[in-house]
Amino acid sequence: MIMKAAVLYGKKSVRIEEREVPKPGVDEVLIRIKAVGLCGSDVHFYEFGRIGDFVVTRPIILGHECSGAVAETGKNVKNFIEGDRVVIEPGFPCGKCEFCREGKYNVCRTVAFLGTPPTDGAFAQFLLAPKDFVFKIPPNISFEEATLAEPTSVAVQAVKRGKISVGETVAIIGAGPIGLLILQTVMSAGASKTYITDLDDFRLRKAKKLGATIAINAKEKASEQIMNFSEDRGVDVAFEAVGICNTINEAIKVTKPGGRVVLVGIPLEKEVRLNIHKMLAKELDIKFVWRYLRTFPTALALLGSGKINTNEIITHQLTLDEIQKAFSILTEKKENAIKIIITL
Amino acid sequence: MIMKAAVLYGKKSVRIEEREVPKPGVDEVLIRIKAVGLCGSDVHFYEFGRIGDFVVTRPIILGHECSGAVAETGKNVKNFIEGDRVVIEPGFPCGKCEFCREGKYNVCRTVAFLGTPPTDGAFAQFLLAPKDFVFKIPPNISFEEATLAEPTSVAVQAVKRGKISVGETVAIIGAGPIGLLILQTVMSAGASKTYITDLDDFRLRKAKKLGATIAINAKEKASEQIMNFSEDRGVDVAFEAVGICNTINEAIKVTKPGGRVVLVGIPLEKEVRLNIHKMLAKELDIKFVWRYLRTFPTALALLGSGKINTNEIITHQLTLDEIQKAFSILTEKKENAIKIIITL
Amino acid sequence: MIMKAAVLYGKKSVRIEEREVPKPGVDEVLIRIKAVGLCGSDVHFYEFGRIGDFVVTRPIILGHECSGAVAETGKNVKNFIEGDRVVIEPGFPCGKCEFCREGKYNVCRTVAFLGTPPTDGAFAQFLLAPKDFVFKIPPNISFEEATLAEPTSVAVQAVKRGKISVGETVAIIGAGPIGLLILQTVMSAGASKTYITDLDDFRLRKAKKLGATIAINAKEKASEQIMNFSEDRGVDVAFEAVGICNTINEAIKVTKPGGRVVLVGIPLEKEVRLNIHKMLAKELDIKFVWRYLRTFPTALALLGSGKINTNEIITHQLTLDEIQKAFSILTEKKENAIKIIITL
Amino acid sequence: MIMKAAVLYGKKSVRIEEREVPKPGVDEVLIRIKAVGLCGSDVHFYEFGRIGDFVVTRPIILGHECSGAVAETGKNVKNFIEGDRVVIEPGFPCGKCEFCREGKYNVCRTVAFLGTPPTDGAFAQFLLAPKDFVFKIPPNISFEEATLAEPTSVAVQAVKRGKISVGETVAIIGAGPIGLLILQTVMSAGASKTYITDLDDFRLRKAKKLGATIAINAKEKASEQIMNFSEDRGVDVAFEAVGICNTINEAIKVTKPGGRVVLVGIPLEKEVRLNIHKMLAKELDIKFVWRYLRTFPTALALLGSGKINTNEIITHQLTLDEIQKAFSILTEKKENAIKIIITL
Repeated sequence: MIMKAAVLYGKKSVRIEEREVPKPGVDEVLIRIKAVGLCGSDVHFYEFGRIGDFVVTRPIILGHECSGAVAETGKNVKNFIEGDRVVIEPGFPCGKCEFCREGKYNVCRTVAFLGTPPTDGAFAQFLLAPKDFVFKIPPNISFEEATLAEPTSVAVQAVKRGKISVGETVAIIGAGPIGLLILQTVMSAGASKTYITDLDDFRLRKAKKLGATIAINAKEKASEQIMNFSEDRGVDVAFEAVGICNTINEAIKVTKPGGRVVLVGIPLEKEVRLNIHKMLAKELDIKFVWRYLRTFPTALALLGSGKINTNEIITHQLTLDEIQKAFSILTEKKENAIKIIITL
Repeated sequence: MIMKAAVLYGKKSVRIEEREVPKPGVDEVLIRIKAVGLCGSDVHFYEFGRIGDFVVTRPIILGHECSGAVAETGKNVKNFIEGDRVVIEPGFPCGKCEFCREGKYNVCRTVAFLGTPPTDGAFAQFLLAPKDFVFKIPPNISFEEATLAEPTSVAVQAVKRGKISVGETVAIIGAGPIGLLILQTVMSAGASKTYITDLDDFRLRKAKKLGATIAINAKEKASEQIMNFSEDRGVDVAFEAVGICNTINEAIKVTKPGGRVVLVGIPLEKEVRLNIHKMLAKELDIKFVWRYLRTFPTALALLGSGKINTNEIITHQLTLDEIQKAFSILTEKKENAIKIIITL
Repeated sequence: MIMKAAVLYGKKSVRIEEREVPKPGVDEVLIRIKAVGLCGSDVHFYEFGRIGDFVVTRPIILGHECSGAVAETGKNVKNFIEGDRVVIEPGFPCGKCEFCREGKYNVCRTVAFLGTPPTDGAFAQFLLAPKDFVFKIPPNISFEEATLAEPTSVAVQAVKRGKISVGETVAIIGAGPIGLLILQTVMSAGASKTYITDLDDFRLRKAKKLGATIAINAKEKASEQIMNFSEDRGVDVAFEAVGICNTINEAIKVTKPGGRVVLVGIPLEKEVRLNIHKMLAKELDIKFVWRYLRTFPTALALLGSGKINTNEIITHQLTLDEIQKAFSILTEKKENAIKIIITL
Repeated sequence: MIMKAAVLYGKKSVRIEEREVPKPGVDEVLIRIKAVGLCGSDVHFYEFGRIGDFVVTRPIILGHECSGAVAETGKNVKNFIEGDRVVIEPGFPCGKCEFCREGKYNVCRTVAFLGTPPTDGAFAQFLLAPKDFVFKIPPNISFEEATLAEPTSVAVQAVKRGKISVGETVAIIGAGPIGLLILQTVMSAGASKTYITDLDDFRLRKAKKLGATIAINAKEKASEQIMNFSEDRGVDVAFEAVGICNTINEAIKVTKPGGRVVLVGIPLEKEVRLNIHKMLAKELDIKFVWRYLRTFPTALALLGSGKINTNEIITHQLTLDEIQKAFSILTEKKENAIKIIITL
C-alpha cells in the first residue's frame, strides 16, 4: 500500500513523495496520522539542515507531535482496536540499558525519536509505534488538539522537575508554545503568582488571557520588574523556554536564593555564557529538562479537562500539501503564529 | 481594660467570664478577635477534658482558628497598623532549639499553642500574638472565612508532605472540615482524580459539589470501590483525615505499591493496630502531619483566590454567648455541621 | 542430568531428593550452586509451613541467598562464560508492569522470588537465573562470603531508603544478620554515632566488635538509654530489624522530631499496635523496606572492599545433607548462630 | 587591652598593627585565636584587593578558618567556660529574614562573614563570635588541625548537596585543599570509586595516598580517561573544586545521564561558558554550593575520628609576623603548598 509523506531533502527543501505503508510487528501499532504539530525543532531542521550534532545527511520525514487513528495492530497488542483515536509518545528507548531499567528512559542513549535523524517522523499518512508508546485520546478533544499532548508533556516534565508545590511563585521566560503550556501547567499545579516575559506583545496578550498574573515585555527591564513585583525576593522557580544566553541569565537573576531554575529551551550554540557568581551566591539548583518521562497520561488528562486551553495555542491549521507554507510562516515570522497544525 | 472570654472549667463546663485585656510586648500585636472556628480538638477538650497527654488541669480559654483586627502594636512592630484585618498562626515556637533553627518549628518541643494547656486561646475579645505569626487577610474575604486559614494550613501541610505532583491520583479518607479542605487543596495542586470517603452522605454530597471525582460511602466497601475504579492499582497518595484505626488501614489499603500515605487524623487512643504486612510489601512511605510550617500565606492565597470554597465548609455561625450550644451541636451530632464559627 | 535438592514437604520435614537439572533459555544462565545462606524466612517456612499469605501447599525447594559458578549460558547471554563465579539477585520481576517500567521492580506484583511459593529456590545443585539478575563476585571473596550479597542488599536498600547523610546518628533495633549488616552499611555511609540494641549479649558483643558506638541490651531500658546518650534528642534515623510490635515502637520512640524510621523486620502477625501519637507529634517519616532495587553491585563492592566483615556474621557452615540440622540450630536457638551457610 | 592584628591595606600590602581587644556582648564569646588557615579567598583579596563585588575599600583584617580558646563570655552564654578549645563558624546571619527562618541561613543576604568586607576577620589575637556559632574541638585534635573544620564544612555541604548514597561513583575536579577534603568526605560517605584530577602531580600523589581510586593529571585527557574507566557511562556525581570554565565543563562531561554536578569552585570572572547541550541532553541536576549549613559538628566529628587526614592537607605553619611570606608562598606557587596555617 502506498502513502504520501513530506520528505526533507536539505535546507528549505521539502517534497511530497509516495512511500510504502509499513506493516506492524507483533508489538507494534500502525496509525493513520490525522494531525501533526510543527515543533521548533522541525523548523530548525528545515531552516538549517541540522540541530547540534543531529545532521540531515539523507532525506528524512520530520514531525513528532502527532495524533491519528489505529489502522492495524500486531498480534501481541491487546489494548487497542482499529479506529481507536490515539497519540504517540515519539521517543522509543532501548528498554535494556541502565537508564531504561531504572525508569529514566528519556536519557537512554539509543532512543529512536520520530523526525530526528536517522528516524523518520510523522508527516506521513501512516506511522508505526511500539504499543507501549501509544495512548488513547479523551473523547472530548479533537485530533488537532491532541497533538498538543507532546509539547504539553514537555511542560509537565518541566513542572515535575521544578517540584512546584502549591502556593509557590513562578517566572516563565518565553511565551511561545512551550512557555504558554508551562504557564497553564504551573497554574494547574497551584502556582500562586506567575510572571511571564516575551518580546512579542501578541504572545503576552495570550499569556494574560490564559491567566498569567503579570505579563512583561522583555524590552522593558523584565527582570527588574519581576524583582520589584516580588519585593526584591525573586520567585521560587523560574522556567526558561527560549534557549538563548540572555534569557537563561534572566531566569537565573529572578530566582530567589535557594530557588530552582528549570532550563527547557535548547540554544543553537553548544555553549552559553552563564552568570555563575549569581548561581553560586544564591546556592541555586539548576534542573535541565530533556523530553519527558511517563507524562503522556497527565498531558492528555490536562487537555481533556480543559485545564490546558488549546484555542489560544493553535493559531493555524494547514494541510500536508501546504507544509512548505507552514514552515515559511514560522521561519519568516510574518504572521502571529504560536502553533501550526498540519492535518492529513 | 476588661474583656469577655469563654473559659473551660472541666468536662462540658464553659463559663463566660471577664478578663483583663493584655498589653502587647515590643514584638507583639494585640488583636481584637472577630471570629473563631471550632476545631475538633476544641470539642475534644470540651467533651473529655483532655487530649492524650494534654490535660485541662486549670481553667483554660480554648480556640485557635481565629481572625480579627489589629488593636495595638508593640514598638518593634513595623508592618501592621491599627485596624489591619489579620489571622494568627496559633503556634508560637521557641525560635532557639535545633528544630526551630533548621526551620522545622512545628516540631519545636516548647511551642506555645493557643487553646492547648497551659496556653489560653482565642475565645476572647482580645488576644496577643508575636508579630511574625500575624498575617494580613485578603480584602475579598470576611473575618469568618479567614478563620479557615488555620485548617486550610493543615491541608496545605498535608499536601506538601504528600509531595503531590500534577496528574497524580488521590484518595481522601474522611470528608469533615480537614478532609474537604485537603480535597480542594489537592485539586488546586493538580490531582487528576480524587476519591473521597465518609460515612455521612451530607458530607459526601458536599465533596461531590466541591469537585471530588468520586465520593463513596464508607459503608459500601469503599476501599474495594477505590481499587476497582483504579483498575486494582490504587492511588498515588492517600490522605487520612479521620483518625481511627479502620480508616488508617483503609488509606494503607488503597495506596499503590511504592505510594505515599499521609496521616493527618489524630486518634483518641495512643496506639492503633496497623496492617504492617501491606505497608512492607508495598514499600510504602508513611508521612505524618503535625500542624504546619510556613503555610499561612498559601492558605490565605487559596482562600482569597476562591480555590477554597468556604460556603460549603462553614455551616453554622453563633455568638460567643452561644458557645455551649455550638459545642453541643458538634458533640451530639444532631445537625449537619461541618464547621461552626463563633463571632465576637 | 540429575541433581540433588533439599525439598520441604511441610512443617519441619525436609528431604534430599533427586531432580532433573534444568536447561537455560536464551536469556538464562545455569549456575552450579556452591553456597546458600539460611535466611529467617527459610526458617519460618520450615517451622510453620507459611509466611503470611505465602503457604507451602506443595513440596518446595527453599533458599535464595546463593552463589555459584556459571555452568551453561543461553544464546543471548554475552557477559558470562562457564566458570564465572556469581551470585543471583533472587527476585525476577515481570519487566512489563507500571512498577517495573518506572524502575521500582521490587514492588512488581508478579515477581518470581526464589524459595517463595510457588517458585523453587537454591538448596539444589543447579539453578537457572535470567542473565540480568546474575552478578560476578569480586575475586577476593569466597562463595560462602558472597552469599551475604543478598542480606547486604537488604541493608543497602534500608540505608538508601533512610537517606543517611554523612554525620547523622543512627539507632538499629536488632543485632541479627540484617541488623549487623545495616550497622556496617550505615558506618560505611558516614553515620557518626550508632546505637544498637538486642536481647542477646553474644550479638551485642559482635556489634561492638564491628564498630557500634554503643551496644545496649534491650532488657535494660534501651530506649531510655539511647535518649540519654543523645541528650534527650533522639537519633536522626532508626532502623528496625526484628519485626515485633515492641521493637517497632522502640524505633519510633528513639527517633528525633522530624526524623526517619526505616522498618525492615517482618512481623509474624499481619497487624501490629503502633504508637501513633508519637509518630504524629514528631511528624515522622516512616519508610518501609521491601527487598531491594539495583543494590547487588553495591553489596558486592562493600563485601569486596572489606567494609562488610563477613567473619563476624557467618558463624556456621554445613553441607546440604546437614540442612535439617542447620534448621534445628536456628529454630531451637541452642547455639550462638548469626548466619549459617550451606555448602554444596 | 591591646592585641596584634594583620591588616590588609590594599593589593599585597599587609601590616601588623595594634588594635583594641573587643568586649563580648551578652550573647557573645571572646576567643583568643590560636591558629588560622589561609583560604584561597584570603589570597585573592591579598593579590587583587577584591573578589567580585566584594572590594577592599578600607583596611581590613582577613581570615575566617580559625580556632582558639575561650577568653571571656557574655552573660547569656551558658555552654562555654574560659579555656574551652573552640572553632568559629565564620558567617553570622541575620536570623530574621525568610531564608534564616526556613533554616537556609547560608543564603541570608545580610550575613556578616569574617574577613570579607566590611567585616574584620581572624588574623588577630582576639575575636568575638555569637555563641551559637562557636563549637568545641574534640580533645584529640590540635588548634592547627581544628582550623580545617571550616574548609571541611564546605566539603560536607558539597557532599550533602550532592546527595551521595553508598556505592555511588564520584569524580572530583581539582585536588587543592577543598578537592582533597571532598575526596575524604565522599569516601567516608560510602563512595565506591573516586576519580580525581589536577594539573599538579604533588597534589595527585596526595590524593592517591588519601585513598582516591584513580588520580589523573588533567594534562592527560582526564575526562576521556574517566569515561574509559567508567566504561563510557560517567560517574553518578561530579564535584568541581577549581572554579574555571574548562574544569566546570570537565565536570559536566564526566557525569552520567541523569547525574548530579556539584559546583563549589568560585571563578574569578562573573560569567563562564558552559556546555549547555550536554547538560540538556543528559537532563543533569546542577547544584551550586555556597558556604555551609549546620555542618560544623559533622566536620569536627570527621576530624576527630581521623576520617579526615590533616597531615596531608596542612603543609606549612607560620607565625602571624610571617603572614606576608605565607601569602607569597601561595601567590608565587614556588613551594608545594596545600594549606598554610598561621599560628598566634
